[in-house]
Amino acid sequence: MEITRRDLFKGSAAVAIAGVVSGVSVAADDPLPSWHDGPAKKAILDFVHTTVNQSSPKFVPPEQRIATFDQDGTLWVEHPMYTQVFYCLERVPVVVKAKPELANEEPFKTVLSGDRDAIAKLTMDDLFKILGATLSGMDVDQFRAEVKQWLDHARDARWKRPYTELTYLPMIEVLNYMRVNGYRTYIVTGGGQDFVRVYSDKTYGIPPEQVVGTAGGTSFSYDKSGRPFLTKEPKLLLNDNNAGKPEGIHLMIGRRPFAAFGNSTGDRQMLEYSKAGEGERLAMLLLHDDAGREYAYGPATGLPDTKVGTFTQALYDEAKAKGWTVISMKNDWKRVFA
Amino acid sequence: MEITRRDLFKGSAAVAIAGVVSGVSVAADDPLPSWHDGPAKKAILDFVHTTVNQSSPKFVPPEQRIATFDQDGTLWVEHPMYTQVFYCLERVPVVVKAKPELANEEPFKTVLSGDRDAIAKLTMDDLFKILGATLSGMDVDQFRAEVKQWLDHARDARWKRPYTELTYLPMIEVLNYMRVNGYRTYIVTGGGQDFVRVYSDKTYGIPPEQVVGTAGGTSFSYDKSGRPFLTKEPKLLLNDNNAGKPEGIHLMIGRRPFAAFGNSTGDRQMLEYSKAGEGERLAMLLLHDDAGREYAYGPATGLPDTKVGTFTQALYDEAKAKGWTVISMKNDWKRVFA
Repeated sequence: MEITRRDLFKGSAAVAIAGVVSGVSVAADDPLPSWHDGPAKKAILDFVHTTVNQSSPKFVPPEQRIATFDQDGTLWVEHPMYTQVFYCLERVPVVVKAKPELANEEPFKTVLSGDRDAIAKLTMDDLFKILGATLSGMDVDQFRAEVKQWLDHARDARWKRPYTELTYLPMIEVLNYMRVNGYRTYIVTGGGQDFVRVYSDKTYGIPPEQVVGTAGGTSFSYDKSGRPFLTKEPKLLLNDNNAGKPEGIHLMIGRRPFAAFGNSTGDRQMLEYSKAGEGERLAMLLLHDDAGREYAYGPATGLPDTKVGTFTQALYDEAKAKGWTVISMKNDWKRVFA
Repeated sequence: MEITRRDLFKGSAAVAIAGVVSGVSVAADDPLPSWHDGPAKKAILDFVHTTVNQSSPKFVPPEQRIATFDQDGTLWVEHPMYTQVFYCLERVPVVVKAKPELANEEPFKTVLSGDRDAIAKLTMDDLFKILGATLSGMDVDQFRAEVKQWLDHARDARWKRPYTELTYLPMIEVLNYMRVNGYRTYIVTGGGQDFVRVYSDKTYGIPPEQVVGTAGGTSFSYDKSGRPFLTKEPKLLLNDNNAGKPEGIHLMIGRRPFAAFGNSTGDRQMLEYSKAGEGERLAMLLLHDDAGREYAYGPATGLPDTKVGTFTQALYDEAKAKGWTVISMKNDWKRVFA
């Protein structure tokens, strides 16, 4: 069955159904054109072929086809800071305008100073205070509108492009290839669930209900006219990092993934949990070893990774020992961005 | 377009796609054969017709088509007690065997006595202790297997049938009719999310990832051989009743439903939240007024409803005032069970 690259990109439901029904893997001549031939590309193709062909002893029924993807550093750029942290820093003036007493309190005072070196030295505790103040207290619909507006205007400092364009083309191809073969693709991110849901559909073809992320509570109440609404509360329900990833997958999906993709120790437990299931399972780690086209950090360089997750030597060793596949950005990808 | 009842029951994806693509509502000659003609049946048919026809000013794009259904008392029998409570009571001997010191502690002592009158008088606090003890402490896979085994053998005392056969045929028809027309159907239940997920697919055609329920936390750890697993913890993450229903919908789906079905005050906020959205919205309440074929309770009778939710006169009045449709089991349904 021949389908065009445009069909593939759209992840056409009809094509997916055709593939599921016929019980063969569906692909264009090359479903992963931005990938060099090599062990990483082969691992993905082999996994799909093995799990969607009905004659395979490792066939996976369509309803069980779940693939989970970390976002920051796996689907898009996470350096020099998580995109959501840029958003939160830029929201500080708005928050201080509403609560002027914060202007002389740390860490808000430092953020307002605009002193980049000082901002870069903020601690994790400082950061959590900023996240709490900028990601809660508003109507969920208002929050969605604010994030959307910011994304429309914000630009990455190095590439001068919207953040939503700094997704990795080879990974977009993987998302589409998995979907065309009946896999439901989920984002499982340490980032804010409500934040990522604003752009996940347009950016990745992943609808809001397939985004699992760090989630705060909301509270239901009524406005003066009796209209009900939900307010974002500074109460953490799910810290979707490390052990929180398999816990979040159980909470939000209730099925163990057959394929999981990550790039740091924050994804380790998700990869372990996925790989420990019965049958054929795919676990992949993206190594950032391409300073020219993107960034190099982790074991390739000895440089530290971002604050929450790190691609440590121990993680690299675990991947090798447990049959996970490491993707080298430098060697496995023909192109990085679309 | 003609499709058979069997196609309808299966909620065939291919048929749904055909309907979505062609932009017309898809139905057999009568997609709701167990419903008498009347305002309730008409409300459902009109809603689907209005929202899935592309020429309608109230057309809803397929990706936004979300319909949420309470379970207990809306999709299946909730009297004389929630099915899950029967499960928990019957698990008490197993829990006590593992922790013999509980045998002389209340409320476990009363449950072990088998004294039905005394058990019926247990307080909500007692009940929460029993739920905590019987729904946590085990591997999530082990829990799933135990629930499945219990459901295979347990029988309702009045009908002598498995609980999973005591679903309402007219509501199963609604689920299928909505799905065939591109709606994704979700259960949004005060019952345990992990419990309902065990049988939701087979019983309602609703996969585990589309079950939102009262949810406890889990904890990720490793067994002696290094295999990772998740343990159910006695920590409440989401109480999916009352305000918890719209909050749970936001957490787990991230979209406001276009249609919502319930039967008690526990569903009130979900109905309000759904109905308050823009465009055409459907809110329906099932009134149990049929003592002969099922049960009669709520405003039809003056009898109290089950412990968590009650269909009060105030709820009935709100439904009338806000344009929700009340379904009379006695007058609107030709048949109750399959």
